Amino acid sequence: MARWQPEAPGRLAAAALDLFEENGYENTTVIEIAERAGLTKSTFFRHFPDKREVLFGRATVHGLLVDGIASAPSAAGPLDAVAKALDALGQTYFTADRREFSSRRQAVLNSHTELRERDALKRIGLIASVTEALHRRGVPSPTAHVAAKLGMLVWEIAFDQWIDTDNGEDFGPLARQALADVRAAAAVR
Amino acid sequence: MARWQPEAPGRLAAAALDLFEENGYENTTVIEIAERAGLTKSTFFRHFPDKREVLFGRATVHGLLVDGIASAPSAAGPLDAVAKALDALGQTYFTADRREFSSRRQAVLNSHTELRERDALKRIGLIASVTEALHRRGVPSPTAHVAAKLGMLVWEIAFDQWIDTDNGEDFGPLARQALADVRAAAAVR
Repeated sequence: MARWQPEAPGRLAAAALDLFEENGYENTTVIEIAERAGLTKSTFFRHFPDKREVLFGRATVHGLLVDGIASAPSAAGPLDAVAKALDALGQTYFTADRREFSSRRQAVLNSHTELRERDALKRIGLIASVTEALHRRGVPSPTAHVAAKLGMLVWEIAFDQWIDTDNGEDFGPLARQALADVRAAAAVR
Repeated sequence: MARWQPEAPGRLAAAALDLFEENGYENTTVIEIAERAGLTKSTFFRHFPDKREVLFGRATVHGLLVDGIASAPSAAGPLDAVAKALDALGQTYFTADRREFSSRRQAVLNSHTELRERDALKRIGLIASVTEALHRRGVPSPTAHVAAKLGMLVWEIAFDQWIDTDNGEDFGPLARQALADVRAAAAVR
């Protein structure tokens, strides 16, 4: 029996990204991804249900966001709790060494319908989880749901700027600026 | 030569929606849509480039939004200008007699990847047009872009409630309430 390899998901994702860029998503098989990563097909399926999932090992992001919201100071309003969580994400996940991979990954997602669809579904799942995390802080609906959607908007604005590799800014400050822009746009009369 | 038929796009969309519901999007041909509408294939192609476009005759929505923003009082802030445009949309387009069609249409879009993709692209196009319309009012970036994205968020919240046929409320008031919710969520500290 092969042992559980904690670094396998990252290696499989990196190999998949290379192959999707080189040959296209449709023309790449799970066996090729496993081989490029120096792993077996059964190791692949121990970590991902199918080819479509290999670039979405984001349970981490999900958990970081939900934990970040739960651990925000109790006095923080809903959107500030989301901002704290985005900050934590910038410090532990969207770090400078991940920028190039994230940028290439997003380009591949954007150019393949099937992957873009999966990405959109993951974002909807994130909004639902953030809404629930806010409910657990006692934030009622519709505020919790609207704040979650605003948080995703802030994320998208900041993420698009962060993966622009000419930019060089860190995710945390970009997210804070995006939140300030959203607040300003909402407040203007 | 067949004459230009102003009511043809609506008849084709209604026929297509019926057939997509009955037989699925993939199993429906352009010829079948035209026949069900009592029109010819060539009339179909005079109005739509392909099957995928038949439910997206929304040049109207696009124009109503852009015109609504342009004609908002000059003292109105960017998001208030967008709100005025959504109000106009509710009065002239998302009217009660269109609710059932819109609801069925959205259900078909949501259940077909290809159509959901097209819907997402149309929304991105709308955000770009709203951003430009705000630029023409002298609203600088990033405020214009952020206000356009917030406007789309308000639209989505209101639209989802409006097509819920149990609800019975008009689009305009729902959009105003959604905007108030977004403003409140953004303002809370």
